[in-house]
Amino acid sequence: MAQNIYDRPEFFEGYSQLGRSVEGLDGAAEWPALRAMLPDVRGLRVADLGCGFGWFCRWVLDHGAARVLGFDLSEKMLARAREAGPAGAIVYERADLEQLSLPAAGFDLVYSSLALHYVEDVMRLFGTVHQALAPGGHFVFSTEHPVYMAPSNPGWSVDAEGRRTWPVDRYLMEGPRSTDWLAKGVVKHHRTIGTTLNCLIQAGFIIAHVEEFCPTAEQIAARPALAEELERPMFLLVSARR
Amino acid sequence: MAQNIYDRPEFFEGYSQLGRSVEGLDGAAEWPALRAMLPDVRGLRVADLGCGFGWFCRWVLDHGAARVLGFDLSEKMLARAREAGPAGAIVYERADLEQLSLPAAGFDLVYSSLALHYVEDVMRLFGTVHQALAPGGHFVFSTEHPVYMAPSNPGWSVDAEGRRTWPVDRYLMEGPRSTDWLAKGVVKHHRTIGTTLNCLIQAGFIIAHVEEFCPTAEQIAARPALAEELERPMFLLVSARR
Repeated sequence: MAQNIYDRPEFFEGYSQLGRSVEGLDGAAEWPALRAMLPDVRGLRVADLGCGFGWFCRWVLDHGAARVLGFDLSEKMLARAREAGPAGAIVYERADLEQLSLPAAGFDLVYSSLALHYVEDVMRLFGTVHQALAPGGHFVFSTEHPVYMAPSNPGWSVDAEGRRTWPVDRYLMEGPRSTDWLAKGVVKHHRTIGTTLNCLIQAGFIIAHVEEFCPTAEQIAARPALAEELERPMFLLVSARR
Repeated sequence: MAQNIYDRPEFFEGYSQLGRSVEGLDGAAEWPALRAMLPDVRGLRVADLGCGFGWFCRWVLDHGAARVLGFDLSEKMLARAREAGPAGAIVYERADLEQLSLPAAGFDLVYSSLALHYVEDVMRLFGTVHQALAPGGHFVFSTEHPVYMAPSNPGWSVDAEGRRTWPVDRYLMEGPRSTDWLAKGVVKHHRTIGTTLNCLIQAGFIIAHVEEFCPTAEQIAARPALAEELERPMFLLVSARR
């Protein structure tokens, strides 16, 4: 059973105030890059693994998806997603991604935004997703980049001249990483890029695109703090085909 | 035209004394991992891009390859490879990987060890390799890992407790990196993992395996200095199929 950090009051409170929670998809700097990796969603059957407040579920519905299911471990997030509606058009279900089961060939697109780094057994999950996709179906996801997640001290080091570097260690030591982000003791599962891609390939996927999120010049001009994202990769974005 | 660093006397002298130059393939810690990614080479037509002293060319010949071509930019390395023989069985040619051309469908395996980070235009090279492989053919290569190559100061930072970290910056800023390794001003071309893989996919390859080199417990026991390779990835190993 995965750690249900999102339902802890202090975490939920903090998470609810993030740009991506308040503004939705447009509050997430990596969304334009991830959106560019999606197929045309019109008529597709879509599952969102780790749907949170349901922003993506509503977006695909607005863009013509035929059927939308959102899965999340957090009761609080699902409750808020259901409140946002539209009633009946999107089905939200509670699910632990460590134990998820999905109907065979029931979807054309499986999407997941920043949820897979909470999953220990991605090999199992990728197998579940593969069999749940129709032939030719798409699996598009973002996850925390392993360079971001690996370090013992995942924060900037600033030298005498004020230059920032990201102090990588333990990169090849896969396994849990406990950090204090919004709440104490949040457990994420560090895997190399190689492991993530090889698990997809082993599950039967064809790798279609791999992107390490890089803000555009326009994004940095609009929000100068994003410039630090050029120094070390924070998000890994992947699309794969069944 | 790529920089021909290997023919500079100080570089050639230093390079000739590395473990991998003296001991051959077994002097390279990543060789067992790379070897495990190779197909059975018996009867295959093989090209080695950046063949150096010809260790791999001789290895595939010994393991039953039908035809072996080694390409390198360095006259000095080619001269030594030719001296090592066996005469006539391996053809060594001088080539700049920025401008290489290869006959269509002329090979079953194209291999490259630690040469691609000297190549600026990998998109062109991957296209050349793809058309040079017979359908189902393999492209297996190692390259310096972008985490290793990206930093302004590519060396360990050691904190007050003696713990080593690798100070990553400029990871998303692709382009040349000039370092002093064996000689001053060695130019390598930094690319993210995403860019390398997407160029392969765009050239028509199917990604088969991606590995960020990690020494085994046995390797570390035999050579304790290798333990630092667990902290940050130094080599990226990839196999792809036409």
